[in-house]
Amino acid sequence: MTVAPRTLTPRDANLIILPAKYAADFRALCARNPVPCPLLGMTEPGNPMVPEHLAKDCDIRTDAPAYNVYKEGKLVATKSDILDEWQDDSVGALVGCSFSFEAALIAGGLTPRQIEISRNVPMYKTMVPLAAAGVFTGHMVVSMRPYPPSAIERVRDLTRPFVRAHGEPVAWGAAGAAALGIDDLKGQRPDFGGVSAVHEGEVPVYWGCGVTPQLVVMDSKLPEVVMGHAPGHMLILDMRDEEVCA
Amino acid sequence: MTVAPRTLTPRDANLIILPAKYAADFRALCARNPVPCPLLGMTEPGNPMVPEHLAKDCDIRTDAPAYNVYKEGKLVATKSDILDEWQDDSVGALVGCSFSFEAALIAGGLTPRQIEISRNVPMYKTMVPLAAAGVFTGHMVVSMRPYPPSAIERVRDLTRPFVRAHGEPVAWGAAGAAALGIDDLKGQRPDFGGVSAVHEGEVPVYWGCGVTPQLVVMDSKLPEVVMGHAPGHMLILDMRDEEVCA
Repeated sequence: MTVAPRTLTPRDANLIILPAKYAADFRALCARNPVPCPLLGMTEPGNPMVPEHLAKDCDIRTDAPAYNVYKEGKLVATKSDILDEWQDDSVGALVGCSFSFEAALIAGGLTPRQIEISRNVPMYKTMVPLAAAGVFTGHMVVSMRPYPPSAIERVRDLTRPFVRAHGEPVAWGAAGAAALGIDDLKGQRPDFGGVSAVHEGEVPVYWGCGVTPQLVVMDSKLPEVVMGHAPGHMLILDMRDEEVCA
Repeated sequence: MTVAPRTLTPRDANLIILPAKYAADFRALCARNPVPCPLLGMTEPGNPMVPEHLAKDCDIRTDAPAYNVYKEGKLVATKSDILDEWQDDSVGALVGCSFSFEAALIAGGLTPRQIEISRNVPMYKTMVPLAAAGVFTGHMVVSMRPYPPSAIERVRDLTRPFVRAHGEPVAWGAAGAAALGIDDLKGQRPDFGGVSAVHEGEVPVYWGCGVTPQLVVMDSKLPEVVMGHAPGHMLILDMRDEEVCA
């Protein structure tokens, strides 16, 4: 099993900012659904600095390239910083991202298709219900990368160590797609992200996706302002592999 | 939120005994699916003693009331001890049980129906796929207890702290049953356990169930001998509430 060398590496993270009163429920959502919602850490209420072990001098109000601001589940603004939206009780949640394991796939000669064709990874909202947690519930979102069946065990081995970045695939192939409620084996109709190109002799392989908790929070239609990184504009942390891998 | 007092309490645990070579995959199965598979602990290969913090002087070969022995997923024997089946590389996995939170429901005036009618809890195999982990995959099993909709938030609050005993319900009501793929709202056709009695004005409430990992291991049809407690004859641990609750 190949594990990336244990050094400090820039890693994308999903960012969600909530009122502190929802922090315990969000933490429980992640604890109960760790594959789609791998919680890397949370900030203290009102303190915008990322915990030191995840990144040094990282201010979640300014250090993502772009932010979306939501109210009652609706996008109300996109901003380059959220200094004026920040509240005394704001809490930031940092959720792992599959980009962390893609370097291992590339190093293993199994470059994800969407990187080869310079697109965003295709993502699907599944019919798999999350384990409910307080005010939060919803369905798992997955990302999809096509591989030949002969490569699947190697793909599983390469991504398995990244336990706080979704780890090994949740399902694959036609049976996996059916179990997830996805009827798009060729990657042509994703719910989010880019259209893929599943070649002859390949099958879709599905991983838990960090869009899951964002969608859950949006769908919960909280009356208070909720913020997140704008799609594709994630927060970059400086994390040791130990923080991401088993 | 009511939490049971933090004292040493006898607690039922599900027991699964595997060859050591499957221990890492089983541990990953539990880490990736903690709601149906809350791993309390594992024994060292070849050492039949339960870790001290879970129970003192507890030998997993002799201290459950009855054992089932499986080969290639088939039941081959039921025994009162497994001294003669034990191998140098046998590993025991201890998985939390919903019995742990039922005392809290009773104390809260919300006695589970199956206790009132002296039956086993009804259990269902759902269509919710588990996140695959090495050789192990399968579907979530849930237990069901009926409650009036007005009691559900209280039921959720009472069981939420028991994070290593399935915690709060995963889903409830007609929508929850549909999401899980269960078409038996009245509790008359469970896949395992006893028939329930869902009264007028009540809805089914579903929790993750520790039968899940047992079913996964049986369904994986490992060629080696696998053992478990016989249904209803669990291992009793002496666990502090801290070991079970958040």
